[in-house]
Amino acid sequence: MRLANGHEIPEFHVISAPNWASVLAITEGDQVVLVRQYRHGIAAASLELPAGVIEVGETPLEAARRELREETGYVSEHWEPLVSVATEPSRHTVQAHFFCAFGARAAFEHSPDESEEIELVTVPKRELVELVLRGDVVHGVHVGAILLAESRGLLAR
Amino acid sequence: MRLANGHEIPEFHVISAPNWASVLAITEGDQVVLVRQYRHGIAAASLELPAGVIEVGETPLEAARRELREETGYVSEHWEPLVSVATEPSRHTVQAHFFCAFGARAAFEHSPDESEEIELVTVPKRELVELVLRGDVVHGVHVGAILLAESRGLLAR
Repeated sequence: MRLANGHEIPEFHVISAPNWASVLAITEGDQVVLVRQYRHGIAAASLELPAGVIEVGETPLEAARRELREETGYVSEHWEPLVSVATEPSRHTVQAHFFCAFGARAAFEHSPDESEEIELVTVPKRELVELVLRGDVVHGVHVGAILLAESRGLLAR
Repeated sequence: MRLANGHEIPEFHVISAPNWASVLAITEGDQVVLVRQYRHGIAAASLELPAGVIEVGETPLEAARRELREETGYVSEHWEPLVSVATEPSRHTVQAHFFCAFGARAAFEHSPDESEEIELVTVPKRELVELVLRGDVVHGVHVGAILLAESRGLLAR
């Protein structure tokens, strides 16, 4: 890698991994749909928005819809993009695409992969930010997406 | 890896990398000190809070103080922890530790590593959230830390 100032770094490793999509889904009853699952990187459970890798041939929105359905059994007809961010731009190519889904309703039993153990957690939307402020969400990118939704007034609709 | 439900994943890769520290520094003149630099993972420039890897033997706070000084030339005597988050808990061990520094002042010429090309950017603290809302910060974890500082009233002090 050569910087614009001419400095060369002989060996610099960039990690390519699939992009992922995630959804802040608000139910007809003003609950937000979250998932709690074991995360091996931190060797602990993590409370997050439903999320998952974008499969080949899927758009980010299609992936977010599928992950919401698979991980929670919820569906929604009213989707809006929230934000797309880099998860670790110094060394990772990964982009995370967040959406908001409104008027979500439980339509299926949730059917996570066998490799996923997912606990469905719903919280009143007016308590979501408080939950973040007290540190219950440890995934920094999800913290950003949730507070961005709040700043944009999407939790007050 | 074996999940609590008994399902075994024969091969699961976790990426260990150093933790990092970062600082939202507010100057005596109510400016926030940011840095813009080329990020190879996304092959683009990224506007971020000053941040860097925690060296062996350093505490997160010591690393944040050093990075602020090296990347921007600013120092501060008034530090508070802001938040510690996981950057990608599914596969990464990395924790990012954010601090707020108040009453910061320029004390040195900034002296980034030769491998870093860093542009110092200061913005009025009352414009920081607007800058995030319009998408000028693409690093999702930094978005989270900045909006958390706003939610906690730290930008209004």
